[in-house]
Amino acid sequence: MATCAVVRRPGRGRLAVVGLGPGARDLLTPRAKAELRRASVLVGLDQYVDQIRDLLRPGTRILESGLGAEEERARTAVEEARKGQAVALIGSGDAGVYAMASPALAEASDDIDVVGVPGVTAALAAGAILGAPLGHDHVSISLSDLHTPWEVIERRVRAAAEADLVVTFYNPRSRGRDWQLPKALAILAGHREPSTPVGVVRNASRPDESARVTTLAALDPATVDMMTVVTVGNTATREIAGRMVTPRGYRWQEGTA
Amino acid sequence: MATCAVVRRPGRGRLAVVGLGPGARDLLTPRAKAELRRASVLVGLDQYVDQIRDLLRPGTRILESGLGAEEERARTAVEEARKGQAVALIGSGDAGVYAMASPALAEASDDIDVVGVPGVTAALAAGAILGAPLGHDHVSISLSDLHTPWEVIERRVRAAAEADLVVTFYNPRSRGRDWQLPKALAILAGHREPSTPVGVVRNASRPDESARVTTLAALDPATVDMMTVVTVGNTATREIAGRMVTPRGYRWQEGTA
Repeated sequence: MATCAVVRRPGRGRLAVVGLGPGARDLLTPRAKAELRRASVLVGLDQYVDQIRDLLRPGTRILESGLGAEEERARTAVEEARKGQAVALIGSGDAGVYAMASPALAEASDDIDVVGVPGVTAALAAGAILGAPLGHDHVSISLSDLHTPWEVIERRVRAAAEADLVVTFYNPRSRGRDWQLPKALAILAGHREPSTPVGVVRNASRPDESARVTTLAALDPATVDMMTVVTVGNTATREIAGRMVTPRGYRWQEGTA
Repeated sequence: MATCAVVRRPGRGRLAVVGLGPGARDLLTPRAKAELRRASVLVGLDQYVDQIRDLLRPGTRILESGLGAEEERARTAVEEARKGQAVALIGSGDAGVYAMASPALAEASDDIDVVGVPGVTAALAAGAILGAPLGHDHVSISLSDLHTPWEVIERRVRAAAEADLVVTFYNPRSRGRDWQLPKALAILAGHREPSTPVGVVRNASRPDESARVTTLAALDPATVDMMTVVTVGNTATREIAGRMVTPRGYRWQEGTA
């Protein structure tokens, strides 16, 4: 007879960074759904957790937190994966776009498996509602100066204006941050006609979705909030039958291709 | 007794512009799947039709064509919808990004219903594989000068370089078009360190997917083809544990937020 110590070694942990899409269940990919079901631990912002709670296995541990705790959520997700858990770290839209993938992967080393599940980001969700604003080269710019100096943001808006890029503004305006969007639109207006189409989409694909196509001259920034994305056309973008359409090229538009 | 003529009036037609995602079936959204099943007529490039043929209802009329017939496909799709058909016009990734939505909506008037179904575009699919390259402001630029003069493209690359935007190149290189990518990379190299991470992803999410993280200095353009997207980091992008990570901001990166 001998005594023996049984040491339980955890398996290699897994961190899935999962984009939930814009909100509608039928824009959540099957791959995202499978990763949610696989998770032993779910980490996310409370409002996103609510969105997919019914898709989790019974017993999945849920670590939810409020707005602004991004770094803490990222660290928690990586720590849980290091313990051998199957962690799903969730984000709205695509979790790699202005979201949790970046702080999480800054923490992760190669002692865990990392899987990214892409999702339909807000610019695409808005684009499909507006028509075809992203038919040619386009840039996404966040107008939040919480983590980025305004001079950097302004330089990007200026570059987009000068290079005739279609622009989608993420985080365009909040209660405490109201002068950035008018400033950005004024920069674009220096290089584009007042009649340039602008698409404004709020809560894309959610029950209270609203969208309109207006123009650089007519857009009232006060109608824009944090739930909104704003897409400004390039010099070739037209409103056609109420839809915003950016031609796939310049030669093609002129019919010479 | 009277004879009477029965006139069959077609119902209002429907055009669904459907993004299929990067290729893997589990990155096709349920909404896209539902639109495919609803279609009485499917219009698309032959290779994309092959990808989803099994999802169609029996009896769906399939109008497939080869590369380069974009305008014809767009016109056909709109014409069929005008006849009262439920048409699905398909595209890879997101059909609004350098794809069919733009030529189709340029043709469509308000006598048909138009529905856009967004999809996971190549930049997002590649980003999820590479890590988190799109964590901050980013631009998509097509290097195809088929429809756009090179001067316009070069101006955009220069703007992206000067404004420190993460850049994803679509259509980076083909057999007949081989000098554009080296030229674009040289412009970026004028504003970024040789060690700037560059992600190269070929056939994202397909069985023969390949991906690597290299640098501006080390990338060999000859390894890039039309099935590839190339993502160049900004000055803050780092390679961490083999993954490409762009911080969500500059202040945050410096730990001063």
